[in-house]
Amino acid sequence: MRTKAEIIAFLKREFPHTKCTIDEIGSRSATVKHPVGPEELRPGGTVSGPVLMTVADVAVYVAVLGEIGIVPLAVTTNLSINFLRKPSSSKPIVGVCKLIKVGRSLIVGEVALYSEGLEEMVAHAVGTYSIPPQCRD
Amino acid sequence: MRTKAEIIAFLKREFPHTKCTIDEIGSRSATVKHPVGPEELRPGGTVSGPVLMTVADVAVYVAVLGEIGIVPLAVTTNLSINFLRKPSSSKPIVGVCKLIKVGRSLIVGEVALYSEGLEEMVAHAVGTYSIPPQCRD
Amino acid sequence: MRTKAEIIAFLKREFPHTKCTIDEIGSRSATVKHPVGPEELRPGGTVSGPVLMTVADVAVYVAVLGEIGIVPLAVTTNLSINFLRKPSSSKPIVGVCKLIKVGRSLIVGEVALYSEGLEEMVAHAVGTYSIPPQCRD
Amino acid sequence: MRTKAEIIAFLKREFPHTKCTIDEIGSRSATVKHPVGPEELRPGGTVSGPVLMTVADVAVYVAVLGEIGIVPLAVTTNLSINFLRKPSSSKPIVGVCKLIKVGRSLIVGEVALYSEGLEEMVAHAVGTYSIPPQCRD
Repeated sequence: MRTKAEIIAFLKREFPHTKCTIDEIGSRSATVKHPVGPEELRPGGTVSGPVLMTVADVAVYVAVLGEIGIVPLAVTTNLSINFLRKPSSSKPIVGVCKLIKVGRSLIVGEVALYSEGLEEMVAHAVGTYSIPPQCRD
Repeated sequence: MRTKAEIIAFLKREFPHTKCTIDEIGSRSATVKHPVGPEELRPGGTVSGPVLMTVADVAVYVAVLGEIGIVPLAVTTNLSINFLRKPSSSKPIVGVCKLIKVGRSLIVGEVALYSEGLEEMVAHAVGTYSIPPQCRD
Repeated sequence: MRTKAEIIAFLKREFPHTKCTIDEIGSRSATVKHPVGPEELRPGGTVSGPVLMTVADVAVYVAVLGEIGIVPLAVTTNLSINFLRKPSSSKPIVGVCKLIKVGRSLIVGEVALYSEGLEEMVAHAVGTYSIPPQCRD
Repeated sequence: MRTKAEIIAFLKREFPHTKCTIDEIGSRSATVKHPVGPEELRPGGTVSGPVLMTVADVAVYVAVLGEIGIVPLAVTTNLSINFLRKPSSSKPIVGVCKLIKVGRSLIVGEVALYSEGLEEMVAHAVGTYSIPPQCRD
């Protein structure tokens, strides 16, 4: 497993525009966070869907990197998300990913999304990453 | 059906941060476009997944507005996307939505995503919007 | 919450052809089981995809019935499933559903599918049921 | 491309229990049909969700076989389905699949499902098959 510091440095270098930060990288798991400000809100004071999708995608990506190492060319092949509740307009979004399959070519992660500090899930996603053959350790 | 001008004005007012523009609104359909620049790219020169998801989400939203009128509180309940090919790093992403169900409470749209001017789909999404009862015309 | 016996009787009466049986109905949760025999297998000794989808769908349905009562007209609006590992060809499939949203009109459940007695998930599904307004208690 | 006769014979041999029949196999496309009788119906006279999922899955499988040849070990990795309208209780279900990606390891197909002879889609699905490396022609 790569160290959290290595993965943080990689994300900063490769995705300089992302607002996502990494809270934790565990065994087949990762927790990421995204701030919520005016740019993330839409009418009604809800966090916009694309922000939640971004957090889900990054959470799976970070868990994948934690599991198989720095693989810049890992790409999402499929992501499915259900929006469950209106997120808080004043709290960051937290995404908690658990990998449910780590195969040679496909890795599948499930993500629970929350408004920080609140108990009820605001969204739930499942994402699949495809790993180029030569990149597996 | 609302006029394209009304919907463009609504999007500008309510989503001032979106980079998406509206190309066309038809019968149960809409075409939107998103520019691609350094902020939209990720390692390998690919358009990032969240950009494609954003275009898919906005395309369904615009088709919904075109069909049932300006409903600010319509919210996505589900979005599923398959990433099919590496998009061009130098062309805008175009999303073409067709509504496949317009129900009283749920509207479902299918979106084909392209790099502008190229023939092969780069991604395919299906999104569901939930319409608050009082908001239907 | 309806009793397990009531729901078992309802399923038998309304779905006389289903092979699924109910193991448990809990708070916002349900566990169902499907036998695996020659009819459920496909080339390579794998349990066929439609069997796994059936178990996922029934698991969410039973959890919905346990939560809101006998609602014959609840219908699936969306189901997304990821197939993770080859199931055993000689063990029943067990589906464990947890409801992650219980709204007035939509209920969303997540389902982990296993070969009975084995630890690793063989598939993971998320399903949404739509509840007709007059049917809610 | 394999002949329709070869694929029909293969399905009969390998999936003796399936009720699906093949109507057509075209370029990156296939049309399959499933009869609807008492076993396929559920309360309210609706065709049960698992029947629709089965038709979607088989439609993609047949299109895959038509495209890359008889590959018994091709397996579904992901299937997502939206149920749009109540199907007729007295007409067969027809599934029309178009492949939207034919990659070396993943093939993605989109399926429109109808009650035979009726115009409006009753369900829409997207399925992904994984092709074992040695099996590609």
